[in-house]
Amino acid sequence: MKKIINKPESFVQEMMEGIVAAYSDKVTTLNGDFRVLVKSTPTKEGKVGIVTAGGSGHLPVFLGYVGQGLIDGCAVGNVFASPSAQKMADMIQACDYGSGVLCLYGNYGGDKMNFEMATEMVEMDDIETRTVLVRDDVASSPKSSMEKRRGVAGMVYAFKIAGAAADKGLSLEEVARIAQKALDATRTMGVALSPCIVPEVGKPTFSIKEDEIEIGMGIHGEPGIEVKPMMQADEIASLILEKITADAPLAKGDEVSVMVNGLGATPMEELLIVYRKVHQILSDMGVSVYMPHIGEFATSMEMAGLSITIIKLDEELKPLLRAPATSPFYTNANK
Amino acid sequence: MKKIINKPESFVQEMMEGIVAAYSDKVTTLNGDFRVLVKSTPTKEGKVGIVTAGGSGHLPVFLGYVGQGLIDGCAVGNVFASPSAQKMADMIQACDYGSGVLCLYGNYGGDKMNFEMATEMVEMDDIETRTVLVRDDVASSPKSSMEKRRGVAGMVYAFKIAGAAADKGLSLEEVARIAQKALDATRTMGVALSPCIVPEVGKPTFSIKEDEIEIGMGIHGEPGIEVKPMMQADEIASLILEKITADAPLAKGDEVSVMVNGLGATPMEELLIVYRKVHQILSDMGVSVYMPHIGEFATSMEMAGLSITIIKLDEELKPLLRAPATSPFYTNANK
Repeated sequence: MKKIINKPESFVQEMMEGIVAAYSDKVTTLNGDFRVLVKSTPTKEGKVGIVTAGGSGHLPVFLGYVGQGLIDGCAVGNVFASPSAQKMADMIQACDYGSGVLCLYGNYGGDKMNFEMATEMVEMDDIETRTVLVRDDVASSPKSSMEKRRGVAGMVYAFKIAGAAADKGLSLEEVARIAQKALDATRTMGVALSPCIVPEVGKPTFSIKEDEIEIGMGIHGEPGIEVKPMMQADEIASLILEKITADAPLAKGDEVSVMVNGLGATPMEELLIVYRKVHQILSDMGVSVYMPHIGEFATSMEMAGLSITIIKLDEELKPLLRAPATSPFYTNANK
Repeated sequence: MKKIINKPESFVQEMMEGIVAAYSDKVTTLNGDFRVLVKSTPTKEGKVGIVTAGGSGHLPVFLGYVGQGLIDGCAVGNVFASPSAQKMADMIQACDYGSGVLCLYGNYGGDKMNFEMATEMVEMDDIETRTVLVRDDVASSPKSSMEKRRGVAGMVYAFKIAGAAADKGLSLEEVARIAQKALDATRTMGVALSPCIVPEVGKPTFSIKEDEIEIGMGIHGEPGIEVKPMMQADEIASLILEKITADAPLAKGDEVSVMVNGLGATPMEELLIVYRKVHQILSDMGVSVYMPHIGEFATSMEMAGLSITIIKLDEELKPLLRAPATSPFYTNANK
């Protein structure tokens, strides 16, 4: 195992220590607890809080979106494992600024169970919560059972848009509605070329042959829908866009944002080559692209591969996507 | 070869098409030439121009720093190969806003030869130029022959600081002085864990054993100073800091910025674990850190490994580092 780490069992703790040492002007631990990250910048009283949670190993997801104009808190689990309900409850309490808290997270069993317990726990303190689940991965379940789909990179658009809505002073009901609306308009699919290594396991938990590509693989190595001989960039872009638009059709005149997200080891150059083809296909359909996101937004440590996310925008979502935002891992300087 | 590309020979062209399709609000080709990228945003008449050039395969370096508050143009070569003198001359002409142009680039033979020809070519058009070479890699040559050192990730600090100086309206002489001053205060060293694949070659151009790490390897796979058994994160941080501070000593009360730069395949989590140790060592020395940069700033496609850069700041360099900047690959939203 060739990882630049110290002891595998201190991977998460030391990563968190690095974040707090580097970015204390933006984020901090909750009362010294390295498993709950919150903003260190002031929050306006009465703003709706937005929180998330999930396992480690996906930076910038999840905690990388704790920041101004984004989300307020993140509970941090071990690699690929949910944090506890107690940490989530502590976080929700800390991120209630008087108008309730939106729990916005990926549709994974452990996170869901623990968040359900956590929201019950804070109810006793009269903290109102709403839950919106991210289920953007079209490869993870057919359209007939969409409610089973997993949450992947599309959650970044939900964090950004819901974060801007909360910043505008909208109510919990409204912020939840907008988060759900953004997610209803969002679809993602990925491909993987190589596995990743969980530090405490020390070897790849699955394998992909040297001349093969796994279509639709999840960010924890969940099996995809098909294993194919290695494909060219344009074929990958076309295949993913075909699956996404079959699930959520696009029409001439539509406006979308596109995320081409590297899973960890795939060079930026390759993401741009894929973006080029996505842009061409959309242009040919008469669909225009607004604020493309190309880079690493939701990873699986050293996994090679990428995902493509499409979110269809309207006049409500567009300015919320554009609004300024600053976190250690996501910044735009829009005016 | 498992790269997400189309034809290897169209790698650079298609990457550039992706950039221009995605970011036309920020950057554009020079008169349709995909080998010269310039800003698409307005430039104040009389601002000193800053240009660079280099081979492809290092994104965000070099072209990723063309933007507001950064550099004005970049000539783009094939993978790991210098662009031509003619492209450089075209770029210098386009980036002269009436007060001359600073050529700021890494100390590599091909780039140097071509830039020398290019600056002679534009002299005939009465364009004044200055040249500042980046030679921050302490592993590439001993202190006694510093002038032979290669330029690596430290050039990002030079782009940022010189870019802010030019934006303030300083003269060519002053912008060149400040770029040189920033570089005199900058040292970098890297380690590599795995090779990268040049698309047109199709296989790794060198190898690193599964249980070894190459100390001081260059970003094109230039041999390092030592091959060692794989090391832990803290050992790597200590070793690099030792080499850097032996070359450019730090003292109690000094203030630095630190860049922990991933070479391509190394996860963000690992960069943060290394940053944690760098921060600890500097703290123990009484050295404080300002605006750390942790992420991918200068890569070698899918190479695994990282580099650490230290720049010693003073009251002139600090506000220039902090000044706002926006490019497709580097943004800060500082006020």
